[in-house]
Amino acid sequence: MTINNLKAAVIGGGVIGAGWIARFAENGIDVSVYDPAPDAERKAACVFENAEHAYSKLTMAPRANKGVVRFVGSVDEAVRDVELIVEAAPENPSLKKTIYEEIEKTAAPDAIIASSTSGILPSDLQEGMIHPERLLVAHPFNPVYLLPLVELVGGKDTAIDVIDKASEIYTAIGMRPLHIKKEIEAFVADRFLEAVWREALWLVKDGIATTGEIDDAIRFGFGLRWAQMGIFETYRLAGGEGGMRHFIAQFGRCLQWPWTKLMDVPELTEELIELIASQSDAQSGHHSIRELERIRDDNLVAILQALKVNNWGAGETLADYEKKRFDAGAMQTTDADLSQPIRTLERQVPTDWTDYNNHMNESRYLQCFADASDALLRMIGVDADYVASSGSYFTVETHIRHLDEVAALQPIYVTTQVLSARGKKLHLFHSLYHDDGRLLATGEHMLIHVNLETRSASDPTAAVSQLATEIAQAHAKLETPDGAGRAIGQSL
Amino acid sequence: MTINNLKAAVIGGGVIGAGWIARFAENGIDVSVYDPAPDAERKAACVFENAEHAYSKLTMAPRANKGVVRFVGSVDEAVRDVELIVEAAPENPSLKKTIYEEIEKTAAPDAIIASSTSGILPSDLQEGMIHPERLLVAHPFNPVYLLPLVELVGGKDTAIDVIDKASEIYTAIGMRPLHIKKEIEAFVADRFLEAVWREALWLVKDGIATTGEIDDAIRFGFGLRWAQMGIFETYRLAGGEGGMRHFIAQFGRCLQWPWTKLMDVPELTEELIELIASQSDAQSGHHSIRELERIRDDNLVAILQALKVNNWGAGETLADYEKKRFDAGAMQTTDADLSQPIRTLERQVPTDWTDYNNHMNESRYLQCFADASDALLRMIGVDADYVASSGSYFTVETHIRHLDEVAALQPIYVTTQVLSARGKKLHLFHSLYHDDGRLLATGEHMLIHVNLETRSASDPTAAVSQLATEIAQAHAKLETPDGAGRAIGQSL
Repeated sequence: MTINNLKAAVIGGGVIGAGWIARFAENGIDVSVYDPAPDAERKAACVFENAEHAYSKLTMAPRANKGVVRFVGSVDEAVRDVELIVEAAPENPSLKKTIYEEIEKTAAPDAIIASSTSGILPSDLQEGMIHPERLLVAHPFNPVYLLPLVELVGGKDTAIDVIDKASEIYTAIGMRPLHIKKEIEAFVADRFLEAVWREALWLVKDGIATTGEIDDAIRFGFGLRWAQMGIFETYRLAGGEGGMRHFIAQFGRCLQWPWTKLMDVPELTEELIELIASQSDAQSGHHSIRELERIRDDNLVAILQALKVNNWGAGETLADYEKKRFDAGAMQTTDADLSQPIRTLERQVPTDWTDYNNHMNESRYLQCFADASDALLRMIGVDADYVASSGSYFTVETHIRHLDEVAALQPIYVTTQVLSARGKKLHLFHSLYHDDGRLLATGEHMLIHVNLETRSASDPTAAVSQLATEIAQAHAKLETPDGAGRAIGQSL
Repeated sequence: MTINNLKAAVIGGGVIGAGWIARFAENGIDVSVYDPAPDAERKAACVFENAEHAYSKLTMAPRANKGVVRFVGSVDEAVRDVELIVEAAPENPSLKKTIYEEIEKTAAPDAIIASSTSGILPSDLQEGMIHPERLLVAHPFNPVYLLPLVELVGGKDTAIDVIDKASEIYTAIGMRPLHIKKEIEAFVADRFLEAVWREALWLVKDGIATTGEIDDAIRFGFGLRWAQMGIFETYRLAGGEGGMRHFIAQFGRCLQWPWTKLMDVPELTEELIELIASQSDAQSGHHSIRELERIRDDNLVAILQALKVNNWGAGETLADYEKKRFDAGAMQTTDADLSQPIRTLERQVPTDWTDYNNHMNESRYLQCFADASDALLRMIGVDADYVASSGSYFTVETHIRHLDEVAALQPIYVTTQVLSARGKKLHLFHSLYHDDGRLLATGEHMLIHVNLETRSASDPTAAVSQLATEIAQAHAKLETPDGAGRAIGQSL
């Protein structure tokens, strides 16, 4: 299925509708939109801005030319000549049916109608339609432009090729369609969300926990697990080497206990246990429990590090922990030894620093060197206070030799040699190493001190100048590093 | 609270007990362990190996000297001379009480006893103890060595300073203690897990979805959200600008619908709505909805990218999408005008690309040039298929002249001149411009074609070689750009 030239209509431009529009437009699909609310276009524009911000970071792959988004004055106008019509109206069955009636007056008879409903049965929605076979539920998750899941649910009259065609479209725009083969109110994901929501309302009402405490109970614990494995795969691991059967044997009895308000539970017959265990085997049995545990742990480590970059939730906890460990370890790193290059950076290659060649992207080499320069600058007194009052150093020229590759999560460090420090100029030479001693790259950099008001060259303060000179004089005794002063291609 | 010299005992070395041991030992705490199972030590060793693997990647902060782990032959021997005793026995109240009886024979009277129970009330557990005031529930989440959450719950006899002391210990070992102030069966997190588990059992039993489909419904959708925001903060955003009140107004009626088996629901009185909305304000009100949306999106982008590195779950979906976009992007760069440098990149400076000098960080200049090189490579046929089958180009040397500053959100573009293309080598010269025509930087780059199996230099395919040569020959008619072939400092 190609989505070239696909045209879509979205009826309802709220949080969900606008999310759909943003995802379609990002993928080059033109969208016509109808929403009767007077401020719909303004509100939707905020969602588009968020989507733009997210997509500018999400992928380094080339982006499509944006589809054209047109707000129009009626359902008729919106659905004319489109192949896909998304209904994202409020959860009101009769309102939705009125909209379908309107749609069917103008739309091509084979245009797909996809309802975003969180839980109304498609069989109920398609009752009374002229072409009920083209209606399905395609239930997305907010923010629609980022989250991949879309639940596809057909009603009793939905044609299977409509499900197939919809599935291809959603895959083409970066989503993960999940065909729910038997309809049920709220489908699958929202049944869980509803159960948790109802349970949470009780907890707040009964004064057990506040909304903030409840959210922390989710995002510092099982929420992290569920970003990468669902409840069954997670519990397969909780069963240890015995897997799912052992887990059920251990926790089966809790089903009778009042551990939730949901006390209507199926009987754990041998038949049901066998059904669950065999489905779990089919789902995860190609990995051993040990392998799955490693996959889970690698995912959790990557997620925790990702959240650490944003200093949020469990990532903030990790950052606090690291700070304490650095402080505890800092006493071990004595005053810098100026008889050799200074170790200015130690880190692991973050998971999002790699590219399609499965190694650290070249721009991240410069990020390491830039961070190392910053560390050296802090050593000579160019800290936040200095920048606020006296100036800063700007890099004006850079020469990098990329000597070896390095993969995600590998430990690396940088050593820095001050080649010269005279007047406004600071000439640095960084070497990036893997912890195993391999030299990965060298970076030669000319920095100029600037006045941040005029943005032009200026002298550093005497104190900064003196510290820089001190290091440069000590480093003058070191050999000129291999590769310094070279132009591109001189050794090639 | 310092955890220096703290000693701990763990009774029960299963998945949870071994996870506790690993976390204690990682933080320099000696642990004595009692587990009557004959293979307990072997099984626990597997958990320790997983923990070691995870910690080797989790943080670059200096690690503590590992605590000593000793398996001993009895509860008595384990709990002698320790300050913290973790009980991680099966969920059987009478078994747990027998263990406490055993513990109190030998343990110091002020040693803390922390039960790992997932849901039994601490008031029930402490009944009949000699020193009930030192018992609390400290409920962790598997894998205990990685997930930060630990729910702390006191019973009616628990001393508050026991909760405080436990809280300090768990914080010191990198956890996020959450004090649940009112006891209830299964506390908070596990009430949600139980509700979802029970709902999931029905879905499997009724043939609505398989365990694999259910897990996908979690990990491709709301699981990603819950790794960083809980249900209330998420729904605050789902309410759009109207926040939590609007969300409840919109979805409140669904509470009466059979969207889960959990049909015992609290009445949405004005009082309850006010309670929830005001708690939500206290929790999240210091951020506007727009700010929260950006935080959420930045977190989701980072999580998706993290999972992409492991090619797992939603990260695999992103990787598939990127592959398609790389392929599609290649087809769009047809018919470049070779009589001048090729426009290889157009973008806005993202807001997070700036640094403390309030301009685009130097490393992002190289990111622009790296992206421009990728675009040029795709033009000569080095696309995802080529990378999968025939090789790739690696940058081996880079020379950047930073000529002007550029601020966030400014429009920029790159033009690329091919200086030469001979055999394995590709010599590129990029110029980065502001849309207003200012030259911001130049980048000179030597790339080498490599075989991705051997990771060493190799010839490109004839087709790639021919396209590269074609552009190089056309560009040979252009002037050699200013700054090409220069070493650092030659003009300074």
